[in-house]
Amino acid sequence: MFSSRLATTARCCRRQSLRYLSTSELVNEQKTTRGRVIFSGIQPTGILHLQLGNYLGAISNWVKLQNDAQPEDDVLFTIVGWHALTLPQNPKELSAARTNMLATLLAFGIDPKRSVVFHQDDNQWHTELAWILNCITPIGKLRRMTTWKSRLATSRNANDESEVDESMLNAGLFTYPVLQAADILAYRATHVPVGEDQTQHLELSRDLADSFNRTFSRRKRFFPIPSQLITPTKRVLSLKDPSSKMSKSAPDPASRIELTDTAAQISRKIRAAVTDSIEGITYDPVARPGASNLLAILAACTNEPVEEVAVRYAGKGHSDLKNDLADALEEMLRGPRAEFQRLREENGYLAAVAREGAEKAKERSSKTMREVRNMVGLC
Amino acid sequence: MFSSRLATTARCCRRQSLRYLSTSELVNEQKTTRGRVIFSGIQPTGILHLQLGNYLGAISNWVKLQNDAQPEDDVLFTIVGWHALTLPQNPKELSAARTNMLATLLAFGIDPKRSVVFHQDDNQWHTELAWILNCITPIGKLRRMTTWKSRLATSRNANDESEVDESMLNAGLFTYPVLQAADILAYRATHVPVGEDQTQHLELSRDLADSFNRTFSRRKRFFPIPSQLITPTKRVLSLKDPSSKMSKSAPDPASRIELTDTAAQISRKIRAAVTDSIEGITYDPVARPGASNLLAILAACTNEPVEEVAVRYAGKGHSDLKNDLADALEEMLRGPRAEFQRLREENGYLAAVAREGAEKAKERSSKTMREVRNMVGLC
Repeated sequence: MFSSRLATTARCCRRQSLRYLSTSELVNEQKTTRGRVIFSGIQPTGILHLQLGNYLGAISNWVKLQNDAQPEDDVLFTIVGWHALTLPQNPKELSAARTNMLATLLAFGIDPKRSVVFHQDDNQWHTELAWILNCITPIGKLRRMTTWKSRLATSRNANDESEVDESMLNAGLFTYPVLQAADILAYRATHVPVGEDQTQHLELSRDLADSFNRTFSRRKRFFPIPSQLITPTKRVLSLKDPSSKMSKSAPDPASRIELTDTAAQISRKIRAAVTDSIEGITYDPVARPGASNLLAILAACTNEPVEEVAVRYAGKGHSDLKNDLADALEEMLRGPRAEFQRLREENGYLAAVAREGAEKAKERSSKTMREVRNMVGLC
Repeated sequence: MFSSRLATTARCCRRQSLRYLSTSELVNEQKTTRGRVIFSGIQPTGILHLQLGNYLGAISNWVKLQNDAQPEDDVLFTIVGWHALTLPQNPKELSAARTNMLATLLAFGIDPKRSVVFHQDDNQWHTELAWILNCITPIGKLRRMTTWKSRLATSRNANDESEVDESMLNAGLFTYPVLQAADILAYRATHVPVGEDQTQHLELSRDLADSFNRTFSRRKRFFPIPSQLITPTKRVLSLKDPSSKMSKSAPDPASRIELTDTAAQISRKIRAAVTDSIEGITYDPVARPGASNLLAILAACTNEPVEEVAVRYAGKGHSDLKNDLADALEEMLRGPRAEFQRLREENGYLAAVAREGAEKAKERSSKTMREVRNMVGLC
């Protein structure tokens, strides 16, 4: 539901007139005394269903947001089990994916001491708030949301969105932007790191916050109007066809690095990656998409600007770049991969983390929700 | 939401192929060892917004259902705060109405020791189950539900349903039949006393129970398919215009008996009721709607067949009937009216009843809902 692309972090104030904060805008923001509430969610998939693009696009940014947060900030990440139900699921697989996703987040550096990490479906305030927000959401607005089409098309392996229509739409998928708004507003989140594909949904959350404030609240801003944190897209491309995104669903496994790949698999896939026959290395995504993709991945691994990395490889060959990239990837993934395996044996620990996260989430949202109930007359 | 007309009670089995059980069918049913789960809901309005028709049509039937229930039956009545939000509400009035409705039910004989009486919005399993059911509800099915039109028309004081359209529809009103299904299924209710105007909604609850069973359950009937309990309609007509229903929203207060009317008000209104100039009393709703309405109300007060009451008055005049009816109404309403006033001073007691009711409701639904969560994979 929440997207796969998240913002890099930076200090910013609660200027609620801001719509989107780019990285460069963020660093120019003044620090305020009130902390931010950063909130985002991720589908329960788990490491087995993730590839490098998911990590570099989403999880690594969450870790940065957490690590760069100020003491007065509140950072919450949720695994959205209820959203997963909007498309058909195998219950056993969903159950496993829920726990795997938690283990994955922890393995990659989400720290339950610094972030509130929890299962959405462990906090029923979300569904209660979704109901209340449903009652102020015109169905015309939901009709104009188009993201359900792409979700439905993907889930049905359709070639494109024209192959799906409203007759296949259930009320969950139709109203899930409202549940998403409830996820965000239950914590009075101020900043929501989500990808551009979720702009439409965050816009609804902003509308509903404003509409609720105007209808029910004496305070001007009971619900802050949440800002979308956007980063320049880190688009990780297929190793076999750099005109398309790296994807878990592409038929050729060699087109992607999976987060569970061994060092040997990583090395083999990177060495077989499509580049070009031009000598030397330059960063030119249009003319040289294959090599530029490898440079971009390396830059993401080493956390450097891609142009700087390109300069370093200017006089070298593709095999140098590929060897170094394979090493860098293994360096980056080895620890989390082992940690994931370790955590998957620690079911008691994972359950405790989930329980504590749920308690913190409930504690934070219950104060807000008691006020919401008072305001609408359910008291 | 749930309607104003309830079934008289009678023993019946869980024969799930039954669609509707009329009173005569019910008494012929075999007793089974497993108890019924009888469930219904009522809008939070409170005695101030109720008139005689509401009492005779709904509450008095609930009391009968409760009093005639077998020890193995489970009887639950809920005040549906969340449903009330589907139309604009004054929060202060809604809050008062919530408590007034509870006091009203108790005053008229709902006994918290015999029935589980609770506020819907105190049990979040309802909104969670509504979400899960949303995910298996095609929006085409909700489109075919037409009851939102009449609710919207009433709330907007429209002359008829043609004055309202989908542009005024919010997602709460659009999906409330799903929440209603969740209300029922969370308790695995077997029997739902609702009016014929709710047949369409109960049909959806039955469909969703069946659809959930087929999709997620190994047991053949995890959710029983709930049966609608229907009684021959007790239609209480206007005292001023017996061609229309007695209604709280009719402009002339003399057209209705309100549950808070004093003995003098009742007497005055009944004496001024429209009848006809034919001598003697006969029960003939078509030719003599005014007199027949008075006979029907008297029969409801004394719990006799209307035809028997008519025989008793055959040689008497309208004034005899009116005097006796005014006395019978006062007799029926005096106790509950005083009890309502007493209970409204007992906020602590009402809060305790609500709390205990909510605990019982949560206890009953949590077992079901833990199984539901396991079945869909949220575990």
